Amino acid sequence: MGTTQVEAVPEPKYWHLRTVLSEALDSEFAVGQILPNERELAARYGVARATLRQALEQLELEGRLQRRRGVGTTVAPPRMGVDVAPGADAWAGRSGDAWRTEGCTLTAPPAAVAALLGEHGSGPCHTVRRVRTEHGQPVATEILYVTPALTGELPEEGAERGAAVLAALHGRQVERSERSVELGSARADDARRLDRLPGAPVLVVTTRYLVRGATVAVTVATYRADTCRLVFGDLPGGELLAG
Amino acid sequence: MGTTQVEAVPEPKYWHLRTVLSEALDSEFAVGQILPNERELAARYGVARATLRQALEQLELEGRLQRRRGVGTTVAPPRMGVDVAPGADAWAGRSGDAWRTEGCTLTAPPAAVAALLGEHGSGPCHTVRRVRTEHGQPVATEILYVTPALTGELPEEGAERGAAVLAALHGRQVERSERSVELGSARADDARRLDRLPGAPVLVVTTRYLVRGATVAVTVATYRADTCRLVFGDLPGGELLAG
Repeated sequence: MGTTQVEAVPEPKYWHLRTVLSEALDSEFAVGQILPNERELAARYGVARATLRQALEQLELEGRLQRRRGVGTTVAPPRMGVDVAPGADAWAGRSGDAWRTEGCTLTAPPAAVAALLGEHGSGPCHTVRRVRTEHGQPVATEILYVTPALTGELPEEGAERGAAVLAALHGRQVERSERSVELGSARADDARRLDRLPGAPVLVVTTRYLVRGATVAVTVATYRADTCRLVFGDLPGGELLAG
Repeated sequence: MGTTQVEAVPEPKYWHLRTVLSEALDSEFAVGQILPNERELAARYGVARATLRQALEQLELEGRLQRRRGVGTTVAPPRMGVDVAPGADAWAGRSGDAWRTEGCTLTAPPAAVAALLGEHGSGPCHTVRRVRTEHGQPVATEILYVTPALTGELPEEGAERGAAVLAALHGRQVERSERSVELGSARADDARRLDRLPGAPVLVVTTRYLVRGATVAVTVATYRADTCRLVFGDLPGGELLAG
């Protein structure tokens, strides 16, 4: 990085610095490289530490930088394209499935999920917890709520029951699904599974699955916002966006 | 809000405080209500100002709080469900269209967009800027890149040309589209249009439109992450998630 001083500009200083740093990342740094420390960077660019921190936070939000305790700030690799098209996210535990089932309980769904399940939401649901791994990294956690009307008799609690719930769903023809995406912050238990601190930014994907006009299942998945780009669509070999 | 002191807990203090505050928002505050100031809140919960700020930032990220200069921190209304299904986001300037075209230029697309456009990405593209308004609020900006091979002769630059580009596309049968969603920060010009500060968290939706196997258009839309929940799907009257 050069020694460019950030001049007075009409845009906020941290934003101008972010742009300068972003260009420096493109031209002078390699993925995985460790940036100079904050004091050094602030001196180079002639800004206060607080301004520097704001600019670094922006670049972290954009997935350009990673800050890790004990390591420092490194240049992040490009985000992974994670396929979240309904077909791709096979909830059936197929071989090659990126999801690993952690367990299954029979519990009352939270109010927001119960509302989506409608008449089926009044009683307890099979609640399956899963974790998705891509390229050896945990990228998402998911809670799947399935109405027991759909599954019939099931084995014991735990991972076996989770597999049985997924298998019961696998045979069903899901007519359609509706999905929403919003920004959230990782709850403590999800953060631990995703190797993040509580409150880290995540993309929350809520999906309703419909069979014969009724919502039979709802999933709430929490994707790491720093490393993931969610890909929707049916492009065969959609490498350009999914790459 | 009560006077509960935050005790030592295994989770980070700011995270515990966030949970306590979140419950207080549910039970004791109404949408639009102004929270007590930071000093007062920090004293009530027996935490340092820095801890309080971290907790408030979490709740802002989750869309629970809004912080505005000169107003203070208010309880946010529920996020708007904004339909981003390919059918819903008619790029044809139909009546009732939530999008307003701001202008159109013929410019070389940025490298990332050129890569998506493939062979069509080597020359300049019609570049249409639009702003989307829902319930009287700007919720998104979009840049639409359309290859000139598709549009033929066009009128002068500006909004009229933008309308002509959209009309030229309207007649086309788009075979399919692929969309990705990722977290970003608002660039200065987008931030201004969205009534935010530069760097505010946004959801960046990139879409490729395909006609006869070739990508003919790419859009990059920037949605406010604080007020929007993006809804994908084909649920007719999908009020439950889209509400």
